[in-house]
Amino acid sequence: MKTQVAIIGAGPSGLLLGHLLRRQGIGCVVIERQSPDYVLSRIRAGVLETVTTDLMEQLGIDARMHAEGLIEEGFNLADGDRLIRIDITALTGKHVTVYGQTELTRDLMAAAPERGLEIVYEAKDVAIHGVEGDSPSVTYAIDGVEHRIEADFIAGCDGFHGPSRKAIPAPLVREFERVYPFGWLGILADVPPCHHELIYANGPRGFALASMRSNTRSRYYIQVPLTDTLDQWPEERLWDELALRFDPISEKGVTRGPALEMSIAPLRSFVFETMRHGRLFLAGDSAHIVPPTGAKGLNLAASDVAYLAEALAGHYRDGSEAGLAGYEARALARIWKAERFSWYLTKLMHRFPEDGSFEHRMQSAEIDYVASSTAMQKVIAENYVGLPL
Amino acid sequence: MKTQVAIIGAGPSGLLLGHLLRRQGIGCVVIERQSPDYVLSRIRAGVLETVTTDLMEQLGIDARMHAEGLIEEGFNLADGDRLIRIDITALTGKHVTVYGQTELTRDLMAAAPERGLEIVYEAKDVAIHGVEGDSPSVTYAIDGVEHRIEADFIAGCDGFHGPSRKAIPAPLVREFERVYPFGWLGILADVPPCHHELIYANGPRGFALASMRSNTRSRYYIQVPLTDTLDQWPEERLWDELALRFDPISEKGVTRGPALEMSIAPLRSFVFETMRHGRLFLAGDSAHIVPPTGAKGLNLAASDVAYLAEALAGHYRDGSEAGLAGYEARALARIWKAERFSWYLTKLMHRFPEDGSFEHRMQSAEIDYVASSTAMQKVIAENYVGLPL
Repeated sequence: MKTQVAIIGAGPSGLLLGHLLRRQGIGCVVIERQSPDYVLSRIRAGVLETVTTDLMEQLGIDARMHAEGLIEEGFNLADGDRLIRIDITALTGKHVTVYGQTELTRDLMAAAPERGLEIVYEAKDVAIHGVEGDSPSVTYAIDGVEHRIEADFIAGCDGFHGPSRKAIPAPLVREFERVYPFGWLGILADVPPCHHELIYANGPRGFALASMRSNTRSRYYIQVPLTDTLDQWPEERLWDELALRFDPISEKGVTRGPALEMSIAPLRSFVFETMRHGRLFLAGDSAHIVPPTGAKGLNLAASDVAYLAEALAGHYRDGSEAGLAGYEARALARIWKAERFSWYLTKLMHRFPEDGSFEHRMQSAEIDYVASSTAMQKVIAENYVGLPL
Repeated sequence: MKTQVAIIGAGPSGLLLGHLLRRQGIGCVVIERQSPDYVLSRIRAGVLETVTTDLMEQLGIDARMHAEGLIEEGFNLADGDRLIRIDITALTGKHVTVYGQTELTRDLMAAAPERGLEIVYEAKDVAIHGVEGDSPSVTYAIDGVEHRIEADFIAGCDGFHGPSRKAIPAPLVREFERVYPFGWLGILADVPPCHHELIYANGPRGFALASMRSNTRSRYYIQVPLTDTLDQWPEERLWDELALRFDPISEKGVTRGPALEMSIAPLRSFVFETMRHGRLFLAGDSAHIVPPTGAKGLNLAASDVAYLAEALAGHYRDGSEAGLAGYEARALARIWKAERFSWYLTKLMHRFPEDGSFEHRMQSAEIDYVASSTAMQKVIAENYVGLPL
């Protein structure tokens, strides 16, 4: 099979890129290792910047997102029992949209057939070939039969564990990483959220986040030591802990219900440079990871693919290489700023075991300063809604 | 001898407090361990917030400061060869004044006799007594003869090494400290400054600061390892290093001249809680130290004594204890925010030996973000000109 752009990975970055390219009449195929059901079973982020919702609008795949997504005009930082509201709409003129990544992926998948976006699922042993030359290809196996797609370019949208990043020779690469000394224990449940806006809470018992996927589905997290396991956290223990944190500061208090999902995820900051090797371009989690604080992961993937789609469209429209040559620098400028914000908000709102009393006071002083300064609230708000493309 | 307030230390905080109290008709005596010449030989900060210049104006000791001080409406952060101007006047409507701490001290000393502010110099073995009771006193020796001043209150304005802080029993105290893994090597010389506004520079060779005390007197610093000594830094070596840093980015380049003073100072963040014990009140460096980045030390001393003078005046005017009871909380709220900013600017502009490649990129991303965000520039500017009292 031949195509113009072979896209590895049918997560949001691969699907968004596929739709953006198809809209420009560019041929592409998305190759995904898992089944559609598996892809949709992954519980991920749920806060969309306008950068992301704008892309969905441009694609015309925004009907359900607009019907079911919640417009959020603010969010809250809690310092003990004090709630500091960041009025993002007053400060930036923008808002964010609460809409689960799973739902966005579902919409992009559903729109694929009618738009001629071919997605190959359950492709095993995906491998990348010849990206340093003029005729790269991707091979994979379906039911034991090997297939090959020849393409002009390959887009590595295959996440942190995919093969794309690994196809770039080590001597050409720099990796930047910070692993945090705690994880997030999360629970998803069909109960109404305790508050109509997100609450990022810091207190003597550590970080906690009250968020939601809809008016009837809540998503909560708490900071736990990396050594904790799910065995140590029966649902009731977690609900007790969440009630302790959020009952005093939220509108309705925590409503309990059976867990749809519980998990413990480590927190990591990671950036992989280079994002381009010959005819291979990385986008999204294959090139960078942010800690979930601030919900930048999916939105950063969206800006990557917006830049990449524009660069590829420029190439096919007028043969220009400038966009492709500039892709990495353009993407990294936004990535590093989002890494900075995710790191900042993580540091601001968590208890770090290595911190001493001076660092604790610095953290309190920072939160106090945020509470007292409109300029600092604007800094947080403009990053939270997403820096301009 | 009896007075109302015995003030220990004739640095800027003690002298400012003395003048503020005298203006309210409150009796006070300033007790200083050193001679006037020694006090005036100490080379210190030189950037005044409006909080400080406003106090000098209220006291009417502002003529020379206004005649000779330089109004600064902006300053610069340099990231390698890129100069990022923080337009503090456009962003905050305020400015700072470049006027040496030595000159401010000289003005306060000169105005003392005409205003009935008594200063006892060369007082040895200063000791504090009875602050837990109703009749505290200060003893000291002049030429081997012991003197005692009985007072209602004692103000400890005697700096980091003075006896006041040590008079507070250890069990009542919490200390917060951060020592930085580098020092500042400084040079003062009667040469025109390389740039009309300060430049805080970060680059591969570490931090450097180009500042001035006047249009004909320059003050430069560079970051050095704590193990460096002045022996390793003949003047020419330092001028060579400064030329490397500032010739490419400054208006005029570095002009060399004989050093009036050279020194290596460690950097420290330090806060001492409590600032009050019975009838003893701490103000300025006796209770807190900031790293010099951002020039907050003198200005924080000024806000402390402004609060303290107001509290003491309230007490003598209407017998109210509320001001005295609230002094520490009011002072600490501003101190911790200034500690935060000094720490932030220190972290932003220095190379930390312990930082890895991720932290270096975070620092670059932060500077990049500052360069691109008016909101972030306003955050820096509002802290640089001083948060409101």
